[in-house]
Amino acid sequence: MDSRYDIAIVGSGPAGLSAAVNARVRNKNIILFGNAEFSEKLIKAPKIKNYLGLPDITGLQLKDKFENHIKSMNINITLERINEIYAMGEYFGLMVNQKMYEAKAIVLATGIEYTKPLRGEEELLGKGVGYCATCDAPLYKGKVVTIIGYNKEAEREANYVNELVKKVYYIPMYRDKPNLDDNIEIVEDKVLEIYGKERVEKVILENKQIDTDGVFVLKDSISPAQLVPGIAMESNHVKVDANMNTNIPGCFAAGDCVGRPYQYMKAVGQGQTAALNAVSYLDKQ
Amino acid sequence: MDSRYDIAIVGSGPAGLSAAVNARVRNKNIILFGNAEFSEKLIKAPKIKNYLGLPDITGLQLKDKFENHIKSMNINITLERINEIYAMGEYFGLMVNQKMYEAKAIVLATGIEYTKPLRGEEELLGKGVGYCATCDAPLYKGKVVTIIGYNKEAEREANYVNELVKKVYYIPMYRDKPNLDDNIEIVEDKVLEIYGKERVEKVILENKQIDTDGVFVLKDSISPAQLVPGIAMESNHVKVDANMNTNIPGCFAAGDCVGRPYQYMKAVGQGQTAALNAVSYLDKQ
Repeated sequence: MDSRYDIAIVGSGPAGLSAAVNARVRNKNIILFGNAEFSEKLIKAPKIKNYLGLPDITGLQLKDKFENHIKSMNINITLERINEIYAMGEYFGLMVNQKMYEAKAIVLATGIEYTKPLRGEEELLGKGVGYCATCDAPLYKGKVVTIIGYNKEAEREANYVNELVKKVYYIPMYRDKPNLDDNIEIVEDKVLEIYGKERVEKVILENKQIDTDGVFVLKDSISPAQLVPGIAMESNHVKVDANMNTNIPGCFAAGDCVGRPYQYMKAVGQGQTAALNAVSYLDKQ
Repeated sequence: MDSRYDIAIVGSGPAGLSAAVNARVRNKNIILFGNAEFSEKLIKAPKIKNYLGLPDITGLQLKDKFENHIKSMNINITLERINEIYAMGEYFGLMVNQKMYEAKAIVLATGIEYTKPLRGEEELLGKGVGYCATCDAPLYKGKVVTIIGYNKEAEREANYVNELVKKVYYIPMYRDKPNLDDNIEIVEDKVLEIYGKERVEKVILENKQIDTDGVFVLKDSISPAQLVPGIAMESNHVKVDANMNTNIPGCFAAGDCVGRPYQYMKAVGQGQTAALNAVSYLDKQ
């Protein structure tokens, strides 16, 4: 690890990639967190007609163009999931489970969470409901944990948790068959509610109920408000000004997470603006 | 002429092209004003490293990609220069000399004027200094007119004016040899000042002075403040909100004309946002 990066970019969709490319053009030492597929939304797009310069391209083809671009600039995606970001004054600490990365400026490009919270999810958050299974699993030693996984990546976390707790239930929110350790119990049923009076007691499904001590809800992205404590939001979006500044100095945001329209070019343009203003911010330090 | 367009886009740089593509995707009846070369700034760019998806491309190559894109959607550029835009309540009137186009919404993507005003230019604007030679030439019948041309397109206007007035001086602000009617006098000298006490009296050059009744300053773009009377500006830029709304309902703006960074992707993203919000505006009418 390069000790402390100039700019950490969280998210590998169009906004994050654009931020990375622009920060690299300005010779900044960057780290880009994301996933190997770049963006679920992008690769699933059947036909994109409005990416100027690349007419009638599929999402997968555009992803290949993006990959080619970042490779040509020696930009790699760090395949780790940031759980929390703290402003430490001079720098930011980005937590990946037990590990911490440091960066002088941040660009958030985490996309937009399309999934609505489950019934009871928000009310019981921190009272048995959590978003980071690997972070909090040690709290459930000898106990029963239910994992509600929205994507295949959640399976890895489930297997990890399974080594620490007494029993793991896994509820897949997708179609593919989960690939899990043998003693994890897969429950293919519709979640109606996470229930508990003061703390989580059970998960209520359409056909059964599971008694559980904890529930991890593992989504494609967690909301910026959870990721960065203290960040100002406006309805569902990170509040930014025209320069993509958030309310936290040195923390910028771009793309779907800052508002509509949810479009590629808008995201790419904002990623550029965020990165260039992050560079100016660093230059002024 | 299709009588009244849904959206008129003024400017054929990246922001204007992106606006056109996005408005067309939404099936709007559009007209795009600009020039055959799209954008002077673009075609002169030696190497662009940060247009995501197209690494290490020259400005000319990118222009070809843009051309290919708009052709594939049957978008044409109307090679006329808008001199003034009036908000008429239900619609906008876009003046091209004597001709008027009508549109229900406007996207301004006029770029940024890099040339500083000449000494005396602003003070004598409307007092013998003008920006539209073809509009105002009839006022100078039997008189002497000096044209300060910043680009080859100004030559066409000079030839037109030459048919109406007694005498035309032409001062090229570029290197190429002007291609003008024989009796236009070309003055290759450095302009120091447009001078006059109450009205224009003369143009003061480094090596001589020209007595003149009027001066037309023909630049690559005129400022949005001159183009759209009443538009709110913030220092040198059109004032917009996050949705690219100007202070005039139905009038949107995008790209370099709304502020820094002066970058292609930022312009393209804003052009997209402006067009999509113009579409929403029309849908609400």
